[in-house]
Amino acid sequence: MKRNIITGTGICIPPFIRKNEDFINSTFYNEDGVAINKPSAQIIEDFRKITGIEERRYADASLNASSMAAIAAEEAIIASGIDRETIDQIIVAHNYGDLVPGSFQPDTVPSLASRVKYRLGIKNPSCVAYDVLFGCPGWLQGLIQADCFIKAGSASKCLIIGTETLSRIIDDSDRDSMIFADGAGAAILERSELENSDKGILSTAARSDCGDETFFIGLGTAYTPEAKGCGTGYIKMKGRKVYEYAMKHVPEAMKDCLDKSGATIGDLKMVFIHQANEKMDEGILKAFYKLYGIDKMPDNIMPMSIHWLGNSSVATVPTLYHLVKQQMVDGYGLQEGDLIMFASVGAGMNINAVCYRY
Amino acid sequence: MKRNIITGTGICIPPFIRKNEDFINSTFYNEDGVAINKPSAQIIEDFRKITGIEERRYADASLNASSMAAIAAEEAIIASGIDRETIDQIIVAHNYGDLVPGSFQPDTVPSLASRVKYRLGIKNPSCVAYDVLFGCPGWLQGLIQADCFIKAGSASKCLIIGTETLSRIIDDSDRDSMIFADGAGAAILERSELENSDKGILSTAARSDCGDETFFIGLGTAYTPEAKGCGTGYIKMKGRKVYEYAMKHVPEAMKDCLDKSGATIGDLKMVFIHQANEKMDEGILKAFYKLYGIDKMPDNIMPMSIHWLGNSSVATVPTLYHLVKQQMVDGYGLQEGDLIMFASVGAGMNINAVCYRY
Repeated sequence: MKRNIITGTGICIPPFIRKNEDFINSTFYNEDGVAINKPSAQIIEDFRKITGIEERRYADASLNASSMAAIAAEEAIIASGIDRETIDQIIVAHNYGDLVPGSFQPDTVPSLASRVKYRLGIKNPSCVAYDVLFGCPGWLQGLIQADCFIKAGSASKCLIIGTETLSRIIDDSDRDSMIFADGAGAAILERSELENSDKGILSTAARSDCGDETFFIGLGTAYTPEAKGCGTGYIKMKGRKVYEYAMKHVPEAMKDCLDKSGATIGDLKMVFIHQANEKMDEGILKAFYKLYGIDKMPDNIMPMSIHWLGNSSVATVPTLYHLVKQQMVDGYGLQEGDLIMFASVGAGMNINAVCYRY
Repeated sequence: MKRNIITGTGICIPPFIRKNEDFINSTFYNEDGVAINKPSAQIIEDFRKITGIEERRYADASLNASSMAAIAAEEAIIASGIDRETIDQIIVAHNYGDLVPGSFQPDTVPSLASRVKYRLGIKNPSCVAYDVLFGCPGWLQGLIQADCFIKAGSASKCLIIGTETLSRIIDDSDRDSMIFADGAGAAILERSELENSDKGILSTAARSDCGDETFFIGLGTAYTPEAKGCGTGYIKMKGRKVYEYAMKHVPEAMKDCLDKSGATIGDLKMVFIHQANEKMDEGILKAFYKLYGIDKMPDNIMPMSIHWLGNSSVATVPTLYHLVKQQMVDGYGLQEGDLIMFASVGAGMNINAVCYRY
C-alpha cells in the first residue's frame, strides 16, 4: 500500500534564552487583578514543578513568525532532497500571524504561507500557499490536510509548517506567560513511491469541541489593575479547565487514531505530544494506556523538549520530532519500522492525532 | 459520475449603509502623505466610474466577522435541509479575524470556525472546525479544499463560509477605503447521492504568485501626516499593480479551469467573479473570452453586486451566487444544467476558479 511519508524536517529555535530566574522581579496577578500573595521565587518554583519548564526561547527583533517558518522550511526542503519547485502546497499553521514586538497587532495579510513562499524563492505558480488556524494542533492538522490532498490526487508534495511568536502576545503580569515560547517546525510530506512499503501515515483523528470549551483559550486584557479597560488583548488560558478537558478527551482521540491504524498498543514506540505542560502530558499518556488496561506506561515512550523550549504552540510537535530524528533528545532514537504517534490539543478546543510508521 | 454539489447557501448583509456621498467631507491623501489636490466630490465620482461602487455595507457594533458567519451559515444549513450534526467540517475563510471597532487588533484565537460552531450549537465533536487564510479567494479555496476532503473520503458534508469586516481595518484618509465593505456568505457542499448526475464541481484551479506580488496587498500605516510613525496597520493596496496582475493571470486561471472541466466556452452560462472593481472585472472577462478568440463577451455573463455591496473580500463570491439563486440580481437566473464558473483574486497574490454544473 502506498502511503504518504515525511521525507524531511527542519526547525527554527530562536536564539534568545529566557530562564525561569529571569522572571524573579515580576509581580504576578490573578485574573481578578489581585497580586498573588507569594514570593516570585515560590511562584516560579511551583510553576517549574507542574510544567517542567526551566527556560524558553524567544525570537529576537530580527525574527518573526514567517521568517522563522522559512528557516525551518529551508532545512526541511534540503533534508528531503526535493526540488523546491515541485512542492504543490505550502501550509502554514499559526495563530497570531506576524507580530511586531510591542504592537500586539497580528499581521495576517498576505498569509504567512505567501511570505514563506516569497522567502523560499519558489516561483512555480501552481504551488498553492495558505494558512490554517486550528489552535496549537494547527501543524498536525496541516499534516492531516496534506495527507488528504495527496490521497485526493490534488498534490504529491506538501510543505507543512508550524510557527508562532507567543512572546509577543503575553501578559507579563500573568504567571501563565512563563509557559509560552517562540519557534517553528516544518516537514515535507510526499506520496511514497515504494510499492509494498508499510511506512508513512497509517491513520488520523481530529475533533473540535465548541461548547463552553470554545473560550478556554483566547484574548483577554492584562491582569494588572492599570490594564483595566485597556483594549489590548493578550493570550489568556483557563488553565484548570484546559487541563480537565485535555485529560478527558486527548486519550480518547489517541485511542481512536491507534485503533483505526490497525496496530496494537504494544507496537507503539513513541508518542510526540504537544509540549503544553509536563504533568498534563504525563497524565494524558497514563490515561491513554489505561484505556487499554495498562496501568504503567512504558519507559521512554514520551520524549520531551519543554524543559528548555517551553510551549511554542504549533511548533512543538514538528520540533520535537525533528530533535528525536537528529538524536538530540537523550534516551530517544527512531528506527525504521517504528510505530509512532503525533498528538496535540489546544485552542478551539481542538485535538488531533496521527499514527505513523517510521 | 458522483460529484460534490452545493445544496444550500446563505448570506449576511450587514444593515449599515454607507453611501458614496457620505465620504464628501473626507480629506484623501496619497501614499506619500500629500493631500490629493482635487475636490472630494470629484475623487468620489472618479472612484464610482472605475469601481462601480455607489454604496457599501458595514457591520454595526452588534456584529463581527464570526457572528455574521454564523448568520450566513444558519441560512445555508436550513436551505440545504441537512441535520447540522452531520456536518463533517466547518471551514471559515477570512483575513482579519474578529475585530472590535476601533481596536485594530485581529482576534483569531479561538479560530472563527470554532466560534461559528459554538454559535450554531453543533455538538458533534467529529465536526472539525478550522480557518483558512488565502486573501480574498479564501472562500473559494475553502470550497476547493472541501471538494478534496470529500473526494478523499474524509468528509461527506462541509460548511464553507467567507466573512470579513474590512470597515474596521480601513484608513479613512486613503480613497481605497471606499472600496471595502463587510459581509458573509456560506454554502454547504455535499457528496451527490445521485448516480449518473452531471451536477456539481467539475474542475478547480488555484495559483499563488509570491514574488514581488506578495506585498501588493498588506498592512501599512495611515496616509495622513499625523499617522507617520504610528504603528497601527491598515489594509493597503497597490491598486495599479493589483490591476495589472489580475488582468494578466486571472483569465489564464479561468481558462485552465474551464479546459480541465471538459466543457467548452460556448457552454458557459455565468461567471461569479470576486467583486473587486467593476472595470477590472469586465476587463478580466473580456481577456478571458479573448483567450478563446472571442472578441465580444456574451451579454448577461457576469452578475454584479458591487454597486450596492462594495468589496467584502472573501464574502463576495458566495454572496453573489446566493443573490442570483434567489433571483435578486436583475436579468440573471440559474437553470438546472447551467455551466457556471466561480473565480477570485486577492492578497497573496492568489487566484482560483471552480467550474460547476448547476
